[in-house]
Amino acid sequence: MLNIVKIGGNVIDDEAQLAQFLSDFSAVHGFKVLVHGGGKLATKLCDALHIPTQMLDGRRVTDAETLKVVSMVYAGWISKSIVAQLYALGCHAVGLSGADGNAIPATRRSPVPVDYGFVGDVNPGRVNTKFIRSLLEQGLVPVFSAITHDAHGSLLNSNADSVASSLAIAMSELTPTRLIFCFEKNGVLRNPNDDTSAIPEITRELYEKYKACGAISGGMIPKIDSAFKAIAFGVQEVVIGHAKNLNKGGGTTIRNA
Amino acid sequence: MLNIVKIGGNVIDDEAQLAQFLSDFSAVHGFKVLVHGGGKLATKLCDALHIPTQMLDGRRVTDAETLKVVSMVYAGWISKSIVAQLYALGCHAVGLSGADGNAIPATRRSPVPVDYGFVGDVNPGRVNTKFIRSLLEQGLVPVFSAITHDAHGSLLNSNADSVASSLAIAMSELTPTRLIFCFEKNGVLRNPNDDTSAIPEITRELYEKYKACGAISGGMIPKIDSAFKAIAFGVQEVVIGHAKNLNKGGGTTIRNA
Repeated sequence: MLNIVKIGGNVIDDEAQLAQFLSDFSAVHGFKVLVHGGGKLATKLCDALHIPTQMLDGRRVTDAETLKVVSMVYAGWISKSIVAQLYALGCHAVGLSGADGNAIPATRRSPVPVDYGFVGDVNPGRVNTKFIRSLLEQGLVPVFSAITHDAHGSLLNSNADSVASSLAIAMSELTPTRLIFCFEKNGVLRNPNDDTSAIPEITRELYEKYKACGAISGGMIPKIDSAFKAIAFGVQEVVIGHAKNLNKGGGTTIRNA
Repeated sequence: MLNIVKIGGNVIDDEAQLAQFLSDFSAVHGFKVLVHGGGKLATKLCDALHIPTQMLDGRRVTDAETLKVVSMVYAGWISKSIVAQLYALGCHAVGLSGADGNAIPATRRSPVPVDYGFVGDVNPGRVNTKFIRSLLEQGLVPVFSAITHDAHGSLLNSNADSVASSLAIAMSELTPTRLIFCFEKNGVLRNPNDDTSAIPEITRELYEKYKACGAISGGMIPKIDSAFKAIAFGVQEVVIGHAKNLNKGGGTTIRNA
């Protein structure tokens, strides 16, 4: 089983939590890939450099200066420090962006109706699975930031959840694949205010029920939608859970019915 | 023949020169590796972030904050934008630091007698040639920044000339290797003020003669010393020349006598 683990920004921002997570990740058996989000460092760096944050419909616009900052922070500092830390744990990591080896080519999002700037959408059908497989077969662990490229010379900023999900869908054609979203909650919660209320397994039926009654709402909806999409396209299992429980079970599982 | 090409900061700082160089580099036949320096962007970013530049004996001290900046700039923005540009030219590049795949492990320089901070010295004997060969054999072109790691969890800032030279020495055990230093002069000059005075080929004898009379001095001396060292350790040929002449010949050649 290939495990594709996505780790979010909250864990990356906390040095002790990140160290614990990387230690747990390095203990995961078999083939594995890490996809990391960005954390607050990019926002802090934009602020320090007086690059204004533009939001449209609640999403950040990536202009040329912001693209430089996110490339520096995600594909530079965060990627390389994770790799250095994983090596010290005996995990032979390779920090990559989607541009490297054309691993994850993306398409710049249309500026109509909303121009998000240098933002790229990822397509599982174009992932360079041959390259990723060759790394895995050498005992290497790919570590991906969500910086991609348009194959015409420009870098693009992509969504890390989508990168993880696209990688999982693409790799599931080669080998049984599990996609694990690690974040700061214990899973999909029945009651958003009760961290012990994680739903162990969600079927489409249950999902519709919890959405209808409002128990599942907000940012959890696109996460679960993308989990169901991954399952529909061949991923064996998606787990949504707390970063600290990576090897302890728990969380919410979505399986191929 | 494997060509290992080092490109310096002056070319990287100039968008048009860099585009021309990358176009020339993508046209180099056969196996190739690019090693890039940093340029002034790291210094500019340090200034913008009010990180003081500390110099000791004319060399920059890399404290924790400076390490973050050089990792972001060299291994993030410069590395990934070079890769994106090379892809658009049909050159399948992979941007790596020395930490990735443990390609170039380094040793933190002793703080005695001078503490340069997070600075790492590179040893050709520890280069992961197996990893680099596997990339080359897949038709991929490794693009290295001079960010390395100590294999104990910390990134280090290394000298790009030394990285290029260590890679060349290590790879020359597997395949005939040429090391090409591209910079802003036409080669090793007889007269530093006359850019048409490049010495076509330098032997040890000639080198000693030009050093004695002062024609070769300053920053050129460590460059040529490292070229002779590379030759002594198995590299077939070292060329020192102008970036714009990468495929046009010229420059100064140092050969295995």
